[in-house]
Amino acid sequence: MQRPEPFLLINFKTYLEATGKRAVELSKQVEKVGENTGVKVGVAPQFCDLERVSATVDIPVFAQHIDSVSPGSSTGHVLAESVKAAGADGTLINHSERPLRLADIDTAVQLAKQIGLRSVVCAGTARLAAAVALSEPDMVAIEPPELIGTGRAVSKENPGIVTDSVKRVYRVNQTVAILCGAGISTGDDVSAALKLGTDGILVASGIVKAKNPQEVLASFCEAVVR
Amino acid sequence: MQRPEPFLLINFKTYLEATGKRAVELSKQVEKVGENTGVKVGVAPQFCDLERVSATVDIPVFAQHIDSVSPGSSTGHVLAESVKAAGADGTLINHSERPLRLADIDTAVQLAKQIGLRSVVCAGTARLAAAVALSEPDMVAIEPPELIGTGRAVSKENPGIVTDSVKRVYRVNQTVAILCGAGISTGDDVSAALKLGTDGILVASGIVKAKNPQEVLASFCEAVVR
Amino acid sequence: MQRPEPFLLINFKTYLEATGKRAVELSKQVEKVGENTGVKVGVAPQFCDLERVSATVDIPVFAQHIDSVSPGSSTGHVLAESVKAAGADGTLINHSERPLRLADIDTAVQLAKQIGLRSVVCAGTARLAAAVALSEPDMVAIEPPELIGTGRAVSKENPGIVTDSVKRVYRVNQTVAILCGAGISTGDDVSAALKLGTDGILVASGIVKAKNPQEVLASFCEAVVR
Amino acid sequence: MQRPEPFLLINFKTYLEATGKRAVELSKQVEKVGENTGVKVGVAPQFCDLERVSATVDIPVFAQHIDSVSPGSSTGHVLAESVKAAGADGTLINHSERPLRLADIDTAVQLAKQIGLRSVVCAGTARLAAAVALSEPDMVAIEPPELIGTGRAVSKENPGIVTDSVKRVYRVNQTVAILCGAGISTGDDVSAALKLGTDGILVASGIVKAKNPQEVLASFCEAVVR
Repeated sequence: MQRPEPFLLINFKTYLEATGKRAVELSKQVEKVGENTGVKVGVAPQFCDLERVSATVDIPVFAQHIDSVSPGSSTGHVLAESVKAAGADGTLINHSERPLRLADIDTAVQLAKQIGLRSVVCAGTARLAAAVALSEPDMVAIEPPELIGTGRAVSKENPGIVTDSVKRVYRVNQTVAILCGAGISTGDDVSAALKLGTDGILVASGIVKAKNPQEVLASFCEAVVR
Repeated sequence: MQRPEPFLLINFKTYLEATGKRAVELSKQVEKVGENTGVKVGVAPQFCDLERVSATVDIPVFAQHIDSVSPGSSTGHVLAESVKAAGADGTLINHSERPLRLADIDTAVQLAKQIGLRSVVCAGTARLAAAVALSEPDMVAIEPPELIGTGRAVSKENPGIVTDSVKRVYRVNQTVAILCGAGISTGDDVSAALKLGTDGILVASGIVKAKNPQEVLASFCEAVVR
Repeated sequence: MQRPEPFLLINFKTYLEATGKRAVELSKQVEKVGENTGVKVGVAPQFCDLERVSATVDIPVFAQHIDSVSPGSSTGHVLAESVKAAGADGTLINHSERPLRLADIDTAVQLAKQIGLRSVVCAGTARLAAAVALSEPDMVAIEPPELIGTGRAVSKENPGIVTDSVKRVYRVNQTVAILCGAGISTGDDVSAALKLGTDGILVASGIVKAKNPQEVLASFCEAVVR
Repeated sequence: MQRPEPFLLINFKTYLEATGKRAVELSKQVEKVGENTGVKVGVAPQFCDLERVSATVDIPVFAQHIDSVSPGSSTGHVLAESVKAAGADGTLINHSERPLRLADIDTAVQLAKQIGLRSVVCAGTARLAAAVALSEPDMVAIEPPELIGTGRAVSKENPGIVTDSVKRVYRVNQTVAILCGAGISTGDDVSAALKLGTDGILVASGIVKAKNPQEVLASFCEAVVR
C-alpha cells in the first residue's frame, strides 16, 4: 500500500520561545527549511497565535487541542469552528499534556472532520494508538509520556513500542498515517522513526528549545530525504 | 468610597455569530456604541480571535479563560503570556461554563497580575463571590448559573443575590469591582443592576444573539448614563 | 464459538433505595431470584456498601468504579485493592455517569486484572465499545447515554447500535462478553438484547426504582431461560 | 474565645498498610491510644472500609471525600448519605490529592451539614483557608502541598503559613476549628502546631507508615496533654 509523504509536525506547546511574535518567526523558519529541503513540515502554535501564523506561512498549521463542544454556550472552550476560522488546517487531540475522556476524543475527531479540519490523535501506548485509530482520524501519534522532553528518542529507546503501534493500528485501520514522538532530537532519531514504519514525527522541545531551531530542523529533513 | 466607572463586558462565548471575522465585526459595533454613549464597554472573544480583535478595536479585550500553567510543557492549555501577547487586557476566570478548582482560580488570578492582565472572576453565589474576592482580582462577577441565557435578568429575578453578594464581597475586599450577569436583556435590567450596587454587567446572549446587537447595547449604555 | 452464560448485572447507582441497609436487602432479593430461576445475576452497590453486601450474598458483587491509582498517596480515590479487600468480584469502569480519560480506562482494566477483579467497561457507541474491547476487559457494556433511565430499552429503540457493537467488538476481540443497557424495563427488553447477540444486560432504575424489584427481576430472568 | 478540644485526625489515604482488615486494626490502635491518653483522635479510612471501621471503634470516623451529588443517577460517585449510612461521622473535602472545583466544595459542605456529617475542608494556602472557611465547615485544615509526605513538618518548616492561616480564617469565621498538616512526624511538630494557634493536626504517613504507629501516635498525644 502507498504510504503518505513523510510529515514533521512541530508542537510549540506553551514555550515562551514560540509565543506571540516568536511563534510567527519560528513558523517562518520552519517554512523555509521545508522549502529548502522539499520535506513536508507543519507547526502547532498556541490558540492565540493560530490566526497570525496561518496568515503568514503556507505550511500546515495545527491547533494543539479542540474541545468536544458545539457552537453556543461554552465560554472558555476551544470551538473547532473557531480554529478553522483562524486559518488552521488541523488539530492535535488528546496530547498527553491535554488528555481527554474517551468519548470526547471520538467526538472531537468527528467535529474536526465535519468542518474540514485534519486530526492527529495522540496515544501513549500501542494499544491506545489502535483504540484511537478506530475513530478514523487523519493521523495517530504514538508518544510514550515517559520519554517526552527527555531528549531520549522513542525511536531508539523503545523501538518496540513503535513497531507494535504500527502493527496494532494497521490491524484496525489501514489508511491512517502514523507519527511517533517523544525525545526526538537528531536526524538519526528521525531516520529510525521512519524505518520503523511510521509516516513522520511529532516534535516539540527538540526544535523549539534548540539553540538553532532552523539548523536542527534541517538535519531532521535531510534525514527524511536521504 | 469612590466606585469605579460602570463597565459593560460582552462575553462572545462560542457563538458562531461572534466567531472569526464576525468577532471582529461585533467588536467594532461595540466600540462604536461605547464611543457614541461615552460608556465603558469591553468584549471577551474566543482565544483564536483575541489577536485580530485587539488589533482592530480600542476598547478592553478579555480572554474567556486562562489555565493556571506556567510557560513550558502544557500543550493545549491557555497560557496567560499568550493571551497578553495577543493584545488582550484581561481575562475571565472560573466562568460557570468553565469552572475551576479552587487552587487554580487563585493561581490564575496571580498569574494574570504578574503579567499585567486584569481579571474578572465569576461566581454563582454570594458566598462564592466573597471567596474569590479574597484572591484580590480586579473584578468579581456574580452570575447565578440557573439564570444564564434565560432572558430573565438576575437583577430583577433575584435582586437579593446581588445585594447579598455586594455585602459579602465588601466585607472581605473593599476595592474589587463587582459585576453581575445572567439574563440581562434590557436597559432596565442594567439600571436595576447598578442600583443594587454593582459596577457593571457581564452579558452574552442578550447582545450576541440579538437581532440588532448595536441597538440593544445602545439601550444598555443609555440606561447607564441616565 | 461458545458464548458465556447470560448475566444480569444490577447497578445500584446512588439511589437511596439501594443505599446502606437497603443495599443489603436488595442484594438478598436479587440473590433469591437468581437461585429460583437459575440465572446468573450480580449487583453493583456503592463503595461504602461493598463489604456488607459481599459478606451477605453469594452472587457476583461489582464496584461502580475504580480509579487508576496505585497504593499510596491518593486520598479520596478508589483503590482496586480496597475494592478487592471488601470482597468484591469486579468493577464497572467508565460508566457514562463516571467517564474516564482513555489512558485511565486502560490502566484501570490492567489494575483490576492484576489483583483478580473482573472488569465491565462501559461505552456509549459501537465504535467506543470496540475501542475499550482492545484493553481486554472481561466484559464490555454498550449503553447509549441518551436512553439511560428513560424506560425505552436500547434493545428495542436502537437495536442497530447493539448489533453494530457486537460486530465491531468481535472484529477486535472474540472472547470478551458483551452486555447492553439503557432503558431495560421488561422481560421482552431482555429477550431482545440476547437475540441481538449480547451476553446479558446492565440495568439500574428498571430494577432499583421498581415498585417490586424482585418481581421485575424475576420476569427478566424468565425471559433469559425461555 | 473558648477553643475546641485538640483533635488529631489520621488520614489512611490509599496505603495498603491501612486497607481492609489492616484499616480496622490500625483504627483499634488509634482508639486505644486515645483512651490511654485522653486525647481526641479520629481516623479517615477508605470508602470501602468505613462501615467495618465505624462498627468496630468508638472514635470519630471520617470519609476522605464526598462528591457534590444528590441521590440518584451518579454511578461511581460518593454520596454523602452513603458515607453516613456506613456509620461515618464526617468527611474530608478538597484534600490536595482530591482537589475540587470551588462550587463543588461549597455544595459538598452543605450536603454534609444537611445530613449531619461533619466536614474538614483542606486548603493549601492561608488565603484559600479563609476562602473555604466562608462555607462554614466544622474544620479547615491548612496543608501546604509541597510539604505533604516529606517528614518536614509545616509547623516547623513554615510556621508563618500556619499563623497567617489562623489570622485570615478568624477574620472571616471565628467558630471554625483549624487543623494543620503536612510532614507532621514528631510530638514536637504537634506541640508546635498547637502553639501556633491551631486546634489539632491532620496526619497520614507520619502514623500510617511508621514502624510502630501506636508508639508514634502516643508521642503525639503526649505532646497535646503536656
